[in-house]
Amino acid sequence: MGPGPSDVPQRILDAMARPTIGHLDPAFVDLMEQIKAMLRMAFKTENALTFPVSAPGSAGMEMCFVNLIEPGDKVIVCRNGVFGGRMLENVKRTGGVPVVVDDTWGAPVSPDKVRDAFKANPDAKLLAFVHAETSTGAQSDAAALANIAREHGALTIMDCVTSLGGTPIHLDTWGIDAAYSGSQKCLSCTPGLSPVSFSPRAIDRIQARRTPVQSWFLDLSLVLGYWQSAGKRTYHHTAPINPMYGLHEALVMLEEEGLENAWARHRSMHEKLKAGLEALGLQYVVAEDASLPQLNSVYVPQGVDEAAVRSRLLSAFNLEIGAGLGDMAGKIWRIGLMGYSAKQANVDYCLDALGQCLRG
Amino acid sequence: MGPGPSDVPQRILDAMARPTIGHLDPAFVDLMEQIKAMLRMAFKTENALTFPVSAPGSAGMEMCFVNLIEPGDKVIVCRNGVFGGRMLENVKRTGGVPVVVDDTWGAPVSPDKVRDAFKANPDAKLLAFVHAETSTGAQSDAAALANIAREHGALTIMDCVTSLGGTPIHLDTWGIDAAYSGSQKCLSCTPGLSPVSFSPRAIDRIQARRTPVQSWFLDLSLVLGYWQSAGKRTYHHTAPINPMYGLHEALVMLEEEGLENAWARHRSMHEKLKAGLEALGLQYVVAEDASLPQLNSVYVPQGVDEAAVRSRLLSAFNLEIGAGLGDMAGKIWRIGLMGYSAKQANVDYCLDALGQCLRG
Repeated sequence: MGPGPSDVPQRILDAMARPTIGHLDPAFVDLMEQIKAMLRMAFKTENALTFPVSAPGSAGMEMCFVNLIEPGDKVIVCRNGVFGGRMLENVKRTGGVPVVVDDTWGAPVSPDKVRDAFKANPDAKLLAFVHAETSTGAQSDAAALANIAREHGALTIMDCVTSLGGTPIHLDTWGIDAAYSGSQKCLSCTPGLSPVSFSPRAIDRIQARRTPVQSWFLDLSLVLGYWQSAGKRTYHHTAPINPMYGLHEALVMLEEEGLENAWARHRSMHEKLKAGLEALGLQYVVAEDASLPQLNSVYVPQGVDEAAVRSRLLSAFNLEIGAGLGDMAGKIWRIGLMGYSAKQANVDYCLDALGQCLRG
Repeated sequence: MGPGPSDVPQRILDAMARPTIGHLDPAFVDLMEQIKAMLRMAFKTENALTFPVSAPGSAGMEMCFVNLIEPGDKVIVCRNGVFGGRMLENVKRTGGVPVVVDDTWGAPVSPDKVRDAFKANPDAKLLAFVHAETSTGAQSDAAALANIAREHGALTIMDCVTSLGGTPIHLDTWGIDAAYSGSQKCLSCTPGLSPVSFSPRAIDRIQARRTPVQSWFLDLSLVLGYWQSAGKRTYHHTAPINPMYGLHEALVMLEEEGLENAWARHRSMHEKLKAGLEALGLQYVVAEDASLPQLNSVYVPQGVDEAAVRSRLLSAFNLEIGAGLGDMAGKIWRIGLMGYSAKQANVDYCLDALGQCLRG
């Protein structure tokens, strides 16, 4: 019950152990097509270019930035936690000119500040923000932010590593141009793959580039050849076959439950956990209207050795919860309710174990 | 029996399905330390910085180039097949100035040409070559090439995607400064991880950089923090936990067999396959003294529809062999004897099936 990887159900683990076939085998090509279709369902998008990058979320993030930024492009980057800071790092390394919009850790990104940043920088070509900040548990208003970007003729990159499958995402309705996620959060798959999706506007931008993409591995024009429809497939790299089996099974399970049902389950478990944590005297970092159901951050009470509690939870209760990252290190715990882990038994077990630890 | 992924033994598939634990869990940290130690065994190196990149071999390749090249650095790149060409692409995208040494596809890299290239370019800072060219089956003399680079004060990057575990590699004896491989060839693990190793000289070069590494995901100074010894571990990215279980098991199996025994097995199976293929009238692309045991390329006989044969092998015999890549497309077949696949039963089965297809 940390901030991910979440618990992986046996069905997905079993899928990981299926015999490895070749990455150019027609049966594997079919499986990839099914994965793409189910990812479109999960992202709520019609984007043709929706697929899993063969590497963790950090690589999915980098794919978005290196393909959409050319040296000198101005990019408005929202930073309200660790992962906004990582976006900024990506902008710098891609030769972009960042304009940083800072918000307090634990607060959502302020649409007003973003609007001001666009007014001061009308030539900004991109807006980048984190939908679900895993370092704090804050959820930002993606629809409002993407709308501001569109009004100013800019494209939008959204980090939804922790939101996909756990809290509503509407890529097309919101008008997001590039999104990246991870397999190991609310999809409850094993870590190592990064679902991404690019809008037709994003593809136009990429095809109009004047400079080559700095990364060979993450160059979408090459990856496109690999992921395009069967028959014309060209070799780019050897896909991680077995992890793809796992992701496929995770998406089948999401389809079986129903995406909206999965969102509702996360919300309901969050409410139960929150009531219990507050009954233990713990205070949430994030205001309820911006709280992510799947990532519950609470302040460590005065006088409690936070690392000792986590260590005891792991050794005596076989239960992992997360520490604070960056500015929040030592100050908060992060309790995940992600995917398969978002269930009543886990809520009860966590509240009981944490209660015992806090009583000493 | 294609050019990889090779068959994955049940033991490794079973390992992939073990319960997923957190990437910061002490038990996972122990597993990572064991993987690093066993990779040193496989690479024949004492390099402390030896670990699996959390992405396929293409990303391992890119990690070597983006960390060791700074814009303007001159790099001698040897190209005798597809993967040498990919190295060249990496040099260009990293802002390096490439000096290309071309050799015929199917021939090894010529040490004489490399020596001439260094004489004409005494300021070259790097030599890059492919040890085992998967597109042709040619093996180059890594010791001789690295020696020339060292005489000229240059570092050496070696692609050993297809050689690791299948044919002798002596990283330290040869004096290789950066090497990358893949999990899915002679280690018989599932695809998706790229073992890499960096010498102390390579680390010195990286630490003396004047410019930041262009990739965040592949920046060794960040990855170093993640892979350094337990206790000081900082979060970089979420490692692909289950594939690491698979790689661990693959390396345990290699240790059980003994590295030298594995090399000898590949050699012996190659000799049997070669005798059989030649008895079928097929001609090898690569001269025997440069032939990789684990990748057997033969010319498609005149008048034979090469794709139809591969398709029939797959549908009627459940057997995959590889097509030619790049300049070799349509002209050759590539038959892999990699890792677990390098066994007598496979040699016999392949010769029988191919014989039936060729007889019509």
